Amino acid sequence: MKNILIASTSTLHGSGYLEYIMEALTDFFKEANEILFIPYARPGGVSHDDYTELVSNAFLKIGKKVKGLHTCSDPKMAVKGAKAIFVGGGNTFVLTNQLYKNDLIGVLKQSVGNGTPYLGTSAGSNICGLSIRTTNDMPIVYPPSFNALAFVPFNINPHYLDPDVNSKHMGETRETRIKEFHHFNTQPVIGLREGSWLHVNDSSIILKGNLSARIFEYNKQPYEVAPNTDLSELK
Amino acid sequence: MKNILIASTSTLHGSGYLEYIMEALTDFFKEANEILFIPYARPGGVSHDDYTELVSNAFLKIGKKVKGLHTCSDPKMAVKGAKAIFVGGGNTFVLTNQLYKNDLIGVLKQSVGNGTPYLGTSAGSNICGLSIRTTNDMPIVYPPSFNALAFVPFNINPHYLDPDVNSKHMGETRETRIKEFHHFNTQPVIGLREGSWLHVNDSSIILKGNLSARIFEYNKQPYEVAPNTDLSELK
Repeated sequence: MKNILIASTSTLHGSGYLEYIMEALTDFFKEANEILFIPYARPGGVSHDDYTELVSNAFLKIGKKVKGLHTCSDPKMAVKGAKAIFVGGGNTFVLTNQLYKNDLIGVLKQSVGNGTPYLGTSAGSNICGLSIRTTNDMPIVYPPSFNALAFVPFNINPHYLDPDVNSKHMGETRETRIKEFHHFNTQPVIGLREGSWLHVNDSSIILKGNLSARIFEYNKQPYEVAPNTDLSELK
Repeated sequence: MKNILIASTSTLHGSGYLEYIMEALTDFFKEANEILFIPYARPGGVSHDDYTELVSNAFLKIGKKVKGLHTCSDPKMAVKGAKAIFVGGGNTFVLTNQLYKNDLIGVLKQSVGNGTPYLGTSAGSNICGLSIRTTNDMPIVYPPSFNALAFVPFNINPHYLDPDVNSKHMGETRETRIKEFHHFNTQPVIGLREGSWLHVNDSSIILKGNLSARIFEYNKQPYEVAPNTDLSELK
């Protein structure tokens, strides 16, 4: 019953908000007139109102209404009753913390498990994995747990970035960080490059977009998978 | 009584481990024949033994013995009795988690507060701040708290990196991340570039090395401070 779209980013360099993926979203949200938007990740500290307005304007182009979850008096009931859900990017720790504080983890799992279409971008995609332990974000708040929604049986690394071979900076590359993750955790990690997304539809998990994705499995060399690969065997 | 050296990195591009700072360390550790090394941050998942060997070899050049804390049967007593302490880099979450699990936060605060010289690099510098909420590391384990050793009344961002104006990647710049931090936290943050360190000596906190540092204060524009600036008024 699942119908989930897990996107690396909301925005490609030089294009508008959600513009690169809007054609896919037209089909993805075809059954829903209204999308429930969860603005908790607050990119750049933006207010929930301003963030929701940005999203509303983007979805206006395909004739969808957007309702911000922060305007709902009962957030749990709002999630339960939603025809479609979008969780936008920002800070994954802030997002996760707010989901726990509002006791929304369980109802999100239930609604999306029952087929409510869910779109995540960036932080909203991180939380689709088993945990948020492969986020790139700064831990600016302390959430009650790093466990996430577990819509897929692996972890997501959005905004995946290949090592810059000319860099003289001694901070870790993304690949080094994910390898460190595997010294303490065993689930696979999908490095999703900007412009890529996963479409989870019932039991299939298809890589979409024009780019390959990088897969990190415990005790294996990382490898690339091409667009349209089905990743449902990965666990 | 404090005598603390908080370095952005252990290693500069193209030079050996601790090489750029060894002259300063010769003076800093002049009273100690043996340095207690805390290898918990495990960069790249390296073993405690291998990490301690790397550090031993580096300090051999200035005639210092190094003892790994993991070889001590009573880590708390080892910290209490240490003549000098070095906490190396790696993953800040792994390091913080191990410090809490071994109940070392209190004794470290006490020993360093009483004047035991403390050197931190990278993750070992992050934990010198009020919290680890401005680390760059991936949250690969869940520590019991993000609160850190609070040797200084602000937060550290080691490996500080200026924005790449040519980048087409949509992930946040370091400055954007620290600004997000200030939507949820009010303490100042020092962005320490690689090659810079802070020397905390009694009540003075002097920026050392050849580069300026970037200071982020709540509700203020970020600004640069030159080497040899005393930052003890920052809080």
